[in-house]
Amino acid sequence: MIHLSLIGIGTGNPEHVTLAAVRALNEADLILLPRKGEANSDLVDLRRLLCRNLLEASSRTRVVEFDLPRREAGTDYLAAVDDWHGAIAAVWGELMATHLPQGGRVGLLIWGDPSLYDSSLRIAGRLGARTGGEVAVDVVPGITSLQVLTAAHRIPLNALAEPVQITTGRRLRERGWPSDAASVAVMLDSGGAFQALPPEGLHIWWGAYLGMDKQHLIDGPLAEVAATILERRAALRERHGWIMDIYLLRKISGGECNEEG
Amino acid sequence: MIHLSLIGIGTGNPEHVTLAAVRALNEADLILLPRKGEANSDLVDLRRLLCRNLLEASSRTRVVEFDLPRREAGTDYLAAVDDWHGAIAAVWGELMATHLPQGGRVGLLIWGDPSLYDSSLRIAGRLGARTGGEVAVDVVPGITSLQVLTAAHRIPLNALAEPVQITTGRRLRERGWPSDAASVAVMLDSGGAFQALPPEGLHIWWGAYLGMDKQHLIDGPLAEVAATILERRAALRERHGWIMDIYLLRKISGGECNEEG
Repeated sequence: MIHLSLIGIGTGNPEHVTLAAVRALNEADLILLPRKGEANSDLVDLRRLLCRNLLEASSRTRVVEFDLPRREAGTDYLAAVDDWHGAIAAVWGELMATHLPQGGRVGLLIWGDPSLYDSSLRIAGRLGARTGGEVAVDVVPGITSLQVLTAAHRIPLNALAEPVQITTGRRLRERGWPSDAASVAVMLDSGGAFQALPPEGLHIWWGAYLGMDKQHLIDGPLAEVAATILERRAALRERHGWIMDIYLLRKISGGECNEEG
Repeated sequence: MIHLSLIGIGTGNPEHVTLAAVRALNEADLILLPRKGEANSDLVDLRRLLCRNLLEASSRTRVVEFDLPRREAGTDYLAAVDDWHGAIAAVWGELMATHLPQGGRVGLLIWGDPSLYDSSLRIAGRLGARTGGEVAVDVVPGITSLQVLTAAHRIPLNALAEPVQITTGRRLRERGWPSDAASVAVMLDSGGAFQALPPEGLHIWWGAYLGMDKQHLIDGPLAEVAATILERRAALRERHGWIMDIYLLRKISGGECNEEG
C-alpha cells in the first residue's frame, strides 16, 4: 500500500514551510521531485534546497528526480489537461512501483498549497487504478502566493465583511468584474488581463516572484499604475527568463480598503 | 520605534506554524497575548502552548497577557466594529508604551492568516497616532481554516480553471449564490446560512474546529447532509461550549469536482 502526501511548500521562501511539512518530508520513504516541465529551473532548485535543508541526517528518505511529461497544446484546453494529468499519473505510478515495490510513504512537494489552482489532487485521484493497489492520500497545507501577496503589501484579502473572488486571468478577460465581489484576486494571468476592466475606482496590488529573493511589488490606482506594471513585468520576464505574478484588485470607495471585525 | 509583527499561527494544529512564525516569535521582545474576548478559552490556551513550545530557552521574549475589550452590540454593525478596533488599538498602544518605552519588536499571534476576515491589520493601522511614534508593521502568513478544510477533505478549493468566491454567512443569506462562481467558501456563519440556497446540484464540504484535536468533518450532497450538519453543529456546540466552522459549496455537474491543470 502506498501512502501519498501532497506537501504544500509555499512559494519560494524556505521559511514559509510549516513544521507539518518538515515532518512529512522526513517521514517519507521516497520524495518524487519533478525536474522538467516547470516554468523554470528556479522552482526545481527550490525543491532541491528544501530537501537538502530540511531532511534530517537520520532520515531514510530517498529523493528521486524525474522528468515531468509536457502538456500537449490542444485546441480543447480541458481535454489537453485531462490527457496530461493521465500521463503524469502514469509516471508517478511507475516510479512508485519501481522504488517502493512493497509500498511505503511517498512525498510530493507542491508549490503553494495543493488546494489552489493545482493539479496534484486530481492526478493523485487517478493513481489507484494504475498502481493496482490502494493509494491513501493526505494533504499538508502550505502558504499560497495570495497570502504572500497580501502579507508583502500588508493588506487584508477582503474588504471589511465583504466577499472576495479568486479567479483566473482568462476568466477576467472573458467575463469582466464578477458581479458580487468587492475584491478580486487574479491568478494564472499570462499578462495584463486587468486591461479588460475600466480602471476607474479600482486599486491594484501586484506582486511577482512572491516569496523569492527577487520578489517585486507595485501598488496604486489601476488607472495610474497599469502601464508601469506591464512594463515592469515585461522587463522582469526578460531579465529572469520567466515570471510568475498575481494581483488583487479592489473597488475603492472613499479611499480606504479594510477588513473584518 | 515599534516594530509590530502580525504572526499567522494557523487554526489549532501547532504543526501548521511556519518556520518564519517560529523565528518571528523568538525575535520579538514582547508578545501580546489576548486573554479574553475570544470565542473561547481554547484559543487562548493554544496561543500559550505555542509560546511555551516554540520560544527557545535563549529567547529574551516576554509574553504579556491582556484583556481584549469587548465589542458593543450596536445597531450599526460597521460603526460598532470601528469603535471596537479603536478600543483595541488603545490597549495595544498602552501595553507597548508600558513594556517597551524605548521601542522594540512586538509580536501578535493571529489566528489563521492576518489577511482573511481578521481585524489586526486595520487595528495596527490606527497605532501610529496613538503611540506618538512610528510603528512599522510586517505580516507573517499563516495557514487559514479554508486550507485546513480542503486539506482535511482532500479536495481543491476551486473547480478546474473556475473561480471561487470567499464570502460570509451573512452575505450568503442576503444575496444567495454569487452569480459568477462555481465554488463558494463560507466563513463567519453563525449557523446554517446554506439553508438560504436551493440545495439541488450542490455539494458541501463542512468542517468544525479545523486543525484541532476535536476537528469534525461532514460532506455530501447538500440536499442529503444539510440536516445532519445542523444537528451535529448544535450537538458539538453544546458539548464544547463554542464552535467555529466553515464550509465549501460547489455546483456539481456530472458528479465530479476537480481542479486546475
